[in-house]
Parts: sequence; structure tokens; C-alpha cells
Amino acid sequence: MYDVLKKIDSPADVKKLNSAELETLAGDIREALFNRLTKIGGHFGPNFGIVEATIALHYVFDSPKDKFVFDVSHQSYPHKMLTGRKDGYIKDECFKEDSGYTNPEESEHDLFNVGHTSTSVSLATGLAKARDLKGGKENVVALIGDGSLSGGEALEALDFAGSELKSNLIIIVNDNQQSIAEVHGGLYKNLTELRETKGAAANNLFKALGLDYVYEENGNDIQAMIKLFQKVKDVDHPIVVHINTQKGKGYKLAEENREAWHWCMPFDKETGQWNVSFPDESYTGLTCGYIMDKAKKDKDFVVITPAMPMTAGLSPDQRAQLGAQYVDTGIAEEHAVAMASGIAKAGGKPLVVTNSTFIQRTYDQISQDVCINNNPVTILLNYASFDGLTDVTHLGIFTIPAFANIPNLVVLAPTSKEEYLAMLDWSVDQREHPVMIIMPGNEVTSRVTDTDFGNVNTSKIERAGEKVAIMALGDFYQRGQELAEQIEKECGFKPTLINPRFASGLDEKMLNGLTKDHRLVLTLEDGVMDGGFGQRVAAFYAASEMKVKNYGLHKEFYDRYDPQELLKRLGMTTEQILTDIEKLI
Amino acid sequence: MYDVLKKIDSPADVKKLNSAELETLAGDIREALFNRLTKIGGHFGPNFGIVEATIALHYVFDSPKDKFVFDVSHQSYPHKMLTGRKDGYIKDECFKEDSGYTNPEESEHDLFNVGHTSTSVSLATGLAKARDLKGGKENVVALIGDGSLSGGEALEALDFAGSELKSNLIIIVNDNQQSIAEVHGGLYKNLTELRETKGAAANNLFKALGLDYVYEENGNDIQAMIKLFQKVKDVDHPIVVHINTQKGKGYKLAEENREAWHWCMPFDKETGQWNVSFPDESYTGLTCGYIMDKAKKDKDFVVITPAMPMTAGLSPDQRAQLGAQYVDTGIAEEHAVAMASGIAKAGGKPLVVTNSTFIQRTYDQISQDVCINNNPVTILLNYASFDGLTDVTHLGIFTIPAFANIPNLVVLAPTSKEEYLAMLDWSVDQREHPVMIIMPGNEVTSRVTDTDFGNVNTSKIERAGEKVAIMALGDFYQRGQELAEQIEKECGFKPTLINPRFASGLDEKMLNGLTKDHRLVLTLEDGVMDGGFGQRVAAFYAASEMKVKNYGLHKEFYDRYDPQELLKRLGMTTEQILTDIEKLI
Repeated sequence: MYDVLKKIDSPADVKKLNSAELETLAGDIREALFNRLTKIGGHFGPNFGIVEATIALHYVFDSPKDKFVFDVSHQSYPHKMLTGRKDGYIKDECFKEDSGYTNPEESEHDLFNVGHTSTSVSLATGLAKARDLKGGKENVVALIGDGSLSGGEALEALDFAGSELKSNLIIIVNDNQQSIAEVHGGLYKNLTELRETKGAAANNLFKALGLDYVYEENGNDIQAMIKLFQKVKDVDHPIVVHINTQKGKGYKLAEENREAWHWCMPFDKETGQWNVSFPDESYTGLTCGYIMDKAKKDKDFVVITPAMPMTAGLSPDQRAQLGAQYVDTGIAEEHAVAMASGIAKAGGKPLVVTNSTFIQRTYDQISQDVCINNNPVTILLNYASFDGLTDVTHLGIFTIPAFANIPNLVVLAPTSKEEYLAMLDWSVDQREHPVMIIMPGNEVTSRVTDTDFGNVNTSKIERAGEKVAIMALGDFYQRGQELAEQIEKECGFKPTLINPRFASGLDEKMLNGLTKDHRLVLTLEDGVMDGGFGQRVAAFYAASEMKVKNYGLHKEFYDRYDPQELLKRLGMTTEQILTDIEKLI
Repeated sequence: MYDVLKKIDSPADVKKLNSAELETLAGDIREALFNRLTKIGGHFGPNFGIVEATIALHYVFDSPKDKFVFDVSHQSYPHKMLTGRKDGYIKDECFKEDSGYTNPEESEHDLFNVGHTSTSVSLATGLAKARDLKGGKENVVALIGDGSLSGGEALEALDFAGSELKSNLIIIVNDNQQSIAEVHGGLYKNLTELRETKGAAANNLFKALGLDYVYEENGNDIQAMIKLFQKVKDVDHPIVVHINTQKGKGYKLAEENREAWHWCMPFDKETGQWNVSFPDESYTGLTCGYIMDKAKKDKDFVVITPAMPMTAGLSPDQRAQLGAQYVDTGIAEEHAVAMASGIAKAGGKPLVVTNSTFIQRTYDQISQDVCINNNPVTILLNYASFDGLTDVTHLGIFTIPAFANIPNLVVLAPTSKEEYLAMLDWSVDQREHPVMIIMPGNEVTSRVTDTDFGNVNTSKIERAGEKVAIMALGDFYQRGQELAEQIEKECGFKPTLINPRFASGLDEKMLNGLTKDHRLVLTLEDGVMDGGFGQRVAAFYAASEMKVKNYGLHKEFYDRYDPQELLKRLGMTTEQILTDIEKLI
């Protein structure tokens, strides 16, 4: 097993192989992918589809002198195997050595930590520009999937490369006719036309952006790829190399269902069954239920997602059922948010759903297109929690600092199933405010709630007490509840427990009320403290006698951490907070 | 004077005019533009170029039933004149009634407050989508300039419209062969080809994005425009209407120098001379001097701007002198920042310059492409001040909350000419940190300074004192100085004056030191307090005996305010702060 792969310690070893060995290497890489992915999961389809092209890249070019930039970099596993990191795939005890993305800390063959889409061409033009300033001669290669092409950053960069950069840049467009879900956008019609004409169609997006262009239909044929790359190597201008590949190549189930096999949990290779059990009830499932029901009852309601329907648990069937009330913009977050503003302005009820890490692309659209115009758009974010995605490129812990300081935006942090659904329903129907809702990351809990949140910034005192007030925001409400119970048990008094509900403003009347019989306010928030909710509370009381202590995450790019370990390290366990309280009162 | 324009109270009046009267109306509009612009300045070229097309729009379509969205909306003056707002142009006493952008508070004919580029197509697709859900039949028209086309939000929206929207949407591409400065990007080669072939070129960017397309070369001919719009009115699918216009049409100086006349200060119509005097020394001028000098000495240094060279005072001659060390990406902020990360990674020294309001487009690129990778990019921002641009769409007061909470980013707030240049020079040369520098918005002041800022987050105690410490950040340093002097005079003790220098972190050692002989810390910052610098100071001391009071702006979208009035309203004059202090100590 892994006969050829085992001999590969660096790209130099790839160059020594004959064509039969190269074919064996492709098989070895797929076996190694199966080994890792069946056991710990990860990106499936993108890696299985790019095996041959990656072998050819390392056969023809000379990394790290020649520089590769992988878009999203979720298709870089074969590259990692060929650049000294095969153990992360063939030895189970080494899985943790490799992240799921390119990572300069792992290898000089990786240039950037990348996890968001559509960045590779820009980053590569930068490498090329610096090379030119320094008089270098190396090749710079960006590898971008068709799904990533629709993102604004990629389109801006293609336009730039098409006229402003007059030197070597090789942009490989890996066309597998699929985004995460199905592709959306007019440019895919042109890609289809180009595939059908073997690249000969007169109308050509890339040429219209000023770029040179070549096409190769056999993107999963090593020799065809080698020939192609040899042809474009050392080219003296930017060129798009359009290759046709099969996503999930080499695993029948993945070839047949590209969306389901974009990414996988640990699974059984024979049956394709994932070895995981999902809870009966989840916030994603509740969201999906709400959407399907609301759409039926209200024809003004429309769900918009930038290629992330799974964020709201929407299956292909459900998307089809929603019909015109479902819009997938493709990977185009900026457009999704700005379009929602237009819909709201004209009386529609738009709900934008995606992951919190990806909404970062839309700071300006939320501020300018939505909030200055105060249009009632609802933005629903998944994974806005320290306990969601833990890769450094996918953290959800910046949501409150990034967005809750934008005027007019109401940021809601629900604390139970009932509160979540009530907030969602209130937000979609009201016409006064742009709203961002943080989908809870906890297990589903149940608790009665208000249903009208129109009195913006009013907190809810869930349990009145004395001396110490705990403001436990959103996902951290349960921690606050547990803390309150422990204080009552161990300190002999009953603290006040507050559900702030609004992350974007303060209930000043309530806060002033606390000064009568409280000496200490604790804030707990599921995110970075700098620029967050608790600091606003601290500032409110800063000139008074009230003491405040903020709990939350530090301003830091955490990477692949254990969430519970992290809380402990940051002094946020109930015991640690109890110790703090004893010191403070 | 204004014989025809005077009769126009609404678009219905335009429809009654015969062709001679329409021509007279165009002349009247240009006279009215001269009246306003010679006296109070504003956007010149965009408005002079779009007169005929705007008349034709209102002649053919039926606003507000039919809906117009103006990109950037700096070309909406003629539209305003035809929709009941001519007084803002022909009566000097009414100038203030109209903003320089579309504004729904002024008129039902304006759908959005818009000031950033590249948003119109997205917003219009939203209007169209809501119309379709509601079964409406009105036309939705977006008017976008060629300069705005290169922005990612616009390209995403064109791609979306090209396949996902199957109903009426008219996208007028107003091609005047100019951005604010010269155009950049490959798509302009295609626009040229399309103009030269009168729209017949086989390779067509818009068609490649799936859109229908028509071309009209006489964009400044009212009858040609009327015919064109009549042809596309009520079209049942998205269509691009590419029109060729002349920027600055009707004023020879502006036709000849389109960059200089994009926007103007009050000027003399005969000579074209602006009626303003600039100070001998400005921070823009200092920036320009630094850039020209540094570029000569250091071949790794490269200036990148997304179409805003004037932000750094760079004239066309100077840009030419810089050669390969100057990159204008066109309007493509995301690409500019990501490319800079690539340059820095490969050993170059990139300096990105633009207005603070426009850098908002790049929150995600700064976080992901730059800061996670910790690449030494310097981002230099103009107008990051309450005292800069006061239109609601161009505020610079969100810079600190938006960016200073991103990990790894060092945000510097210089307080004098020497400090500014020292920070710039240190930042460009160092290899450790991504850095954002806030260009001072004050008059140039002189004060000695350190030259090494590598010891990140260390503040400078400029004057040691007791009882009260004033932390006066960046542009507000002089206010802090004045306040310190007044305290000494009126309160009988000498307060401590601190120059924080770093807006992105705290000097904890220094702050701990203050607790010995200070009871009150005041923070002054030139921006919104929520999520800002002062709240971090408040949180630091929140569990201690130290009192803190933050001064800065409230979380609000201010619009066309008088800066000094605003400070007074917010209680930030020296006298008001003195009164606060007396209460607090």
C-alpha cells in the first residue's frame, strides 16, 4: 500500500517517476485521502477531483521556487502529500499535524493560510508583482475552482490581471461544474459554452477581462495535464488555464452526488454512511422548519443565501419547493446582502443566511447598503460561536465586535429554542430595523420567552437578586445560569441573572436600576471581548462605583483549539469565575 | 434663464415637452449645475455627462412607479432637478436642501442613500425580485458608470442578473472612459472594443455573464436616448444598455481634463480657477513627498491605490514617475488589499492608500488575507475623522471600531507631522506586523517624536502629572493638550497627558502605573466610542477603583453636520469636559 507515495518526500521525487508510477501515485493519493477522510472527515470532492492536476503541477513546476496559491485551499491535500506531509494522510497518529487548509507554518510550499473563497488570484498577483520588482523569474500559479469565480474579490483580481500585470501569472480554473451546492450565475453559462466548444467559443469571459486563455478537457489525465502545464510554464503574461475535472473522481457515490460529498464526516467506505449521529432537534433543523412554514404563509418572504443553503438545513428538495422564494446567489456575499436591501425597500421580507465567518465579506454592504438606509433585512448567522468552527480561517468569534457597533443594526442573541424562533419571526415581519440574529450554537434548550422585540435594547431580568448581576449573552446564557446557581449555593446570596437579548445596545434604565443593590456586574459573551458587548457595559459604569468584569475571548486568531480547554485557559469555568467574585466583593 | 427648467415640477412635466424644449431643458440643467457648483462645489464631470440620458429616462419611464437606482449617485443632480428639487440648484438659498447623493428623505424618486460605488445593480436586482414576488410590472433601472464596473459587488451582481433573474431589469452602463482617475482593468479593453465595433464585437463581457446587450454611441443625444429607452422599456429580462457619453460635457475645461473635474470646489466659470486656498503644508502633501522619496531609495516599495491616488496627493506626473512602483487597481478595494498581502509575503513593501470610508469594503481581506497571515502590509487612510467628510455615506468615524479589534493589526494614530512620518517610515520597513495608519485630519503641527514603534502598544506619557490622566488619541491629542492646560489653570493641579499612539491595544504597564496617583482617566478619540479605544480602557479598569470617562462620537449615522457644533452637542468642548471633571473628582 502507498508504494509510490511512500517514496515521495518532496516534489523532486515526483519528477523522477515514469508515467506508470505517476498513475500509481494517483491511486496512492486517493487511498491516502480515503484513509484520512473515512476516519476524521474533511473536504472530499475537491481533493478527489484535483489529484491528477496536482501531480502534474509538481512534475512540471518547481515549488517552492515556483509559487502555488490554492483558492479556499480545501483542495490542497494532494499537494500536502507531495510536499513532505504524506504522514498526515497515511499514518493515523499524524492526522493532527496537518490542518485542512494550506498553512505556511507546516511547509515552505504553502504561501498563505487560506479558508475563504475567491482570494487566490489577488494573492498571486501580489506574489507576481513583488517578483517583478525584485527581478525574479519564477512562475506564480493560482488554482481556483469554478465555484469561487463568482466572488467579487476573484472577479476584481481577474480584471486587474487582465490589463495591469504584464508578466507571468498562471490562473488555473478548475471547472468541476459545481460550487458547494449547484452553481449559480451567468458566468457558468459561459463556462459551459467554453467546455462544449473545447475553449473555442468567441465569447469568452476571461478574454473579455483581457486575459489570454487555453482549455484542456482532460483535467483528470496526468499526461494531458503535464503537457498543458509544460506549454504555459514560463509564459510572459497572465493566462487562464481552463481545465475540466470531475469533482469526487474515484468514488462513485461522490461522483454522483457532488453536493453531499463536498465535505464529509467520518464515514464507511463501502456504504458511504457517515459514522455520526445527529441530535433529533437542532437549531439548523428548527431554522429549516421555520423557513418552509413561513414561505407557505407569506409570499413576501424570501430566503437568500450566498451558496450556503446547508446553513439553514435546506435540502435540494426543499429549495425546489421554495421556488421563487429561495435565492442562491452563488458565492457572492456582497451581492446577497445588497440585493436583500433592495428587496426590503420594495416591501419584501428577505432573510439572508450564511456562516458568520463569511458575512465578514459584507461589512460595507451591511453598513452602507442596508443600515444607512435602515431597510428591514434579517441576517441569520450560523457558527457565530467559539464552539463552532475552530479553524483559524473560519472563526465565528468576531461577529459582535465586527457588526454590533454599526448604527441601526439590531443584533439579537437568543438563548433558547422559543426565543430563537420568536426573534426570527419578529424580525422577518417587522419593518423598522435591519437585524442580525446569531443562531445558537448550543444544544437546543427550551424556555418561555417574549415574542415582541420592538422595544430595542431592553434586556430581560430572568431572575432578580442582589449584590452580583450576571449578564449572560446568547449562547453563554446557560453558563450564566449555572454560575448563578453556584453563587447562591456557595456564597449565600442570590445574584441577579440577566438575559441581555440585544448585543448591539444597552438597557440603560435596567443598568441604572442595578446600582441600588448590586456592587458587581459580570458580563459573559461568546466571542472576542475587544469591541464587544461587555466592554460597552464596562464603559457605561466606568465613572460610577459599580465594578464590572468582562468574560469572553481574547483578541487573537485561535486555531484548531479544544473549546472547553480554551475556556479553562481563559479563566472562564464556573469555579474560576467564583474565585474572581470572592476577590471582587 | 431656466425658462424650461422652471416649469418642471415633476417628471410628468418632462413628458409634455417637444424636442426643442427638451434641448433647452438640457441647457437649463447645465446652467443650474454651474450655478450650484461654482458656488458650493460638488461632483462636476459625472453630472455634466449624464444630462441628456437623465432627461430621456424621465421622458420614457414613469418614476417613481418605475424605479431608478443611481450608482454612487454622484451623477443624480439632473435627476433631482427633474423630480421637484430644482430649487437646490437655481436658488442659492436652497442649496442646503439637497444632499450630493440620492436621498429617500428628499424625494420618493430616490430609493436609496448611496455614496459608495458598485452597488446599483445589486440594489436594483433586489427591487426587481420584490416586484416579481408581488406580481408587479414596473421597470427597474440601474445606472452605473464604467468606473464602478470593476468593483466586486457590481461584478457579482452582473453575474447574478445574467442567470438568476428572469425578469425586467435595465442596466445602463454609462461609459465615459474614465474612473475618478484614468480607468484600470482588463474590462476596459473590452468596453473599448465594444465602442469601436458599435457593440458588435463577438467577445462581450456582459454576454459572457449571461446578459442581453445593446449599444448606443450617442449618449449625449436626447432623441437617441429616448429611442433607446423606448426600445428597452418593459423588456422581460435583464439587459445591459451600453451608452457612450462624454464626462464633463458642456464645459471645455472639464472635457479636456476629466480627472481634475470629476469633483470641484467653488470656482470661477471663466477661468476654471478654484476659489480656495490650500495651506502650504498638508498631510496629503507630506504623504506625497514621503512616497516619492521612499520609492527612489527603495525598489521594494510599492504604492497601491484602489482608484484614489489623490488621497496621497499623487498627480498624474508623479504617478508616471513612480512607474512600476505605483499600482492603481481601479475601483477594486478587496483586490488591492489582498494583492498587498501577496506582495508583502514575497518581500515587497506595499503601502495601500485610500479613504477610510472605502476601506470598509475590505474588512474580510484585512482580517483573512492580511492579518491571519500576519503579512507586513501598511494601510494608510485619509479622512478617518469626524472632521473629514460629513456626508452620511462617507463618514470616517467607524475606522477604529471596525478595524482596531482585528487581531494582529497594529492601528497607529499619529499626533504630529514628525510622528506621522516616523510611523509611516517605520511601518513600511518593518516585517513583523500588518499596520493601519490614520492620516491626521488636523492642520499640520510639529512635535518631536520616537522613530521606532516596534514595541507595540506602548503609549507615551507626554507630560506626567497627578489625579487626572488624559489619554488623547491621534487627532484629538491637541484637544487633550488644551484640556490639560485648562485643568492646570483652573483646578490647581497638573494632570497627566498621554499620547496612546496605538489605537489597537493597551499599554497595560503604563495603565497599572497610573493607579498610584490618579483617580480618573479620560479618553478622547476621534470616532465612535462603541467598540472603540476608550471602551477598552474602561474595561481594563472596570473592576478597580479607577474611574474612567470616555469622550468620542455616539454610534450614529451623522449626516452633513457642522463638526464643531457636533462636538458641543456631544459635550466635548474643553469647558464641558472641565465641568464633568469637577463632578467626578
